[in-house]
Amino acid sequence: MKKVKCIIGALAVLVLMLGAAECFAQQNVKAPDALTVIHSRKSVRNFTGQAVSREALDTVLRAGMAAPTAVGRQPWAFVVVTDRKTLDTLRDGLPYAKMLGKAGAAIIVCAMPEKAHDKKIEFALIDSTCAGENILLAAEAIGLGAVWTAAYPYKDRMDVVRKTLRIPDDVIPLNVIPVGHPTGIDKPKNKYNPENIRWEKW
Amino acid sequence: MKKVKCIIGALAVLVLMLGAAECFAQQNVKAPDALTVIHSRKSVRNFTGQAVSREALDTVLRAGMAAPTAVGRQPWAFVVVTDRKTLDTLRDGLPYAKMLGKAGAAIIVCAMPEKAHDKKIEFALIDSTCAGENILLAAEAIGLGAVWTAAYPYKDRMDVVRKTLRIPDDVIPLNVIPVGHPTGIDKPKNKYNPENIRWEKW
Repeated sequence: MKKVKCIIGALAVLVLMLGAAECFAQQNVKAPDALTVIHSRKSVRNFTGQAVSREALDTVLRAGMAAPTAVGRQPWAFVVVTDRKTLDTLRDGLPYAKMLGKAGAAIIVCAMPEKAHDKKIEFALIDSTCAGENILLAAEAIGLGAVWTAAYPYKDRMDVVRKTLRIPDDVIPLNVIPVGHPTGIDKPKNKYNPENIRWEKW
Repeated sequence: MKKVKCIIGALAVLVLMLGAAECFAQQNVKAPDALTVIHSRKSVRNFTGQAVSREALDTVLRAGMAAPTAVGRQPWAFVVVTDRKTLDTLRDGLPYAKMLGKAGAAIIVCAMPEKAHDKKIEFALIDSTCAGENILLAAEAIGLGAVWTAAYPYKDRMDVVRKTLRIPDDVIPLNVIPVGHPTGIDKPKNKYNPENIRWEKW
């Protein structure tokens, strides 16, 4: 009887220890909280060259499509490039996207005025920009790096992107976002400036 | 001796239980992870009327200012309104901002082309939009609700906002973002659509 009590007691302690261990483990692998990600997000221009998984790209794209859009129109499309030749073509044709050379992928957020609320180009651009920001944040959240390199509003850059990716003329390539594994050298900036806050009126 | 062993054993179990309890408790109060916030963010149009603390507004504004800006120019300013009369004036003057009536505050993101890279209005708008998206996400992250109501690109709405808040003519009021305590009735939309993803080319 005493032996049975001992065994039950030991098993109870073991279950408790396993539960606690799992809880601690979960805390460590849990994705960082939103405010931490917002503040740790940075423009990553230095990548290891490692490939980016399809799963990671899917996660990032889903985040992009969770952005708000005027009247829910979702006037956007996302071209995702993983092909090395295409990445190099974009790298060679764009002045500030040289980091594509070691990125694992690129996401090109495309604004589509025809689909936007009131067919306004402004909403197509605003909505797509919100998607772009979500993409940058999601990449940061899963330990990848990314950077918004502008295509719009430069005609020559948009032409390069349209030609390389066969994007129609009525679609605006907003940016080219290289995505990859960061070397770690790029750091976030602290842009908090209370002078940019005006209370109650300008 | 046996009694001492018993007491030590019981204390060990107690410590283990307290540790596990604290771990579980911490998991519950920890801010939600970034991807969860991105996907739970929604346009909140139903508020309780409760005030929003200065601390909460500070958190949200800091998040806004953590957004990327072209060449780090930060071409933005943020007008924060908590005064009830001003909120009501904005509410009465704008067609789709009636929820200001029960919001605790409003944040008006202002784009400043004069400060933007190459003084391009496009960058002022893009950068300020990224800030706006961070504001929406940060509000969601701390349990508040918010919604982007457009001022730009409507001249009449921008005029109302400029006049009410004394914003200079060369500054663009991008939006009016009511911020408040959500009733809980507003839910996120699932806008994921794989047809909007184009692999390798359009």
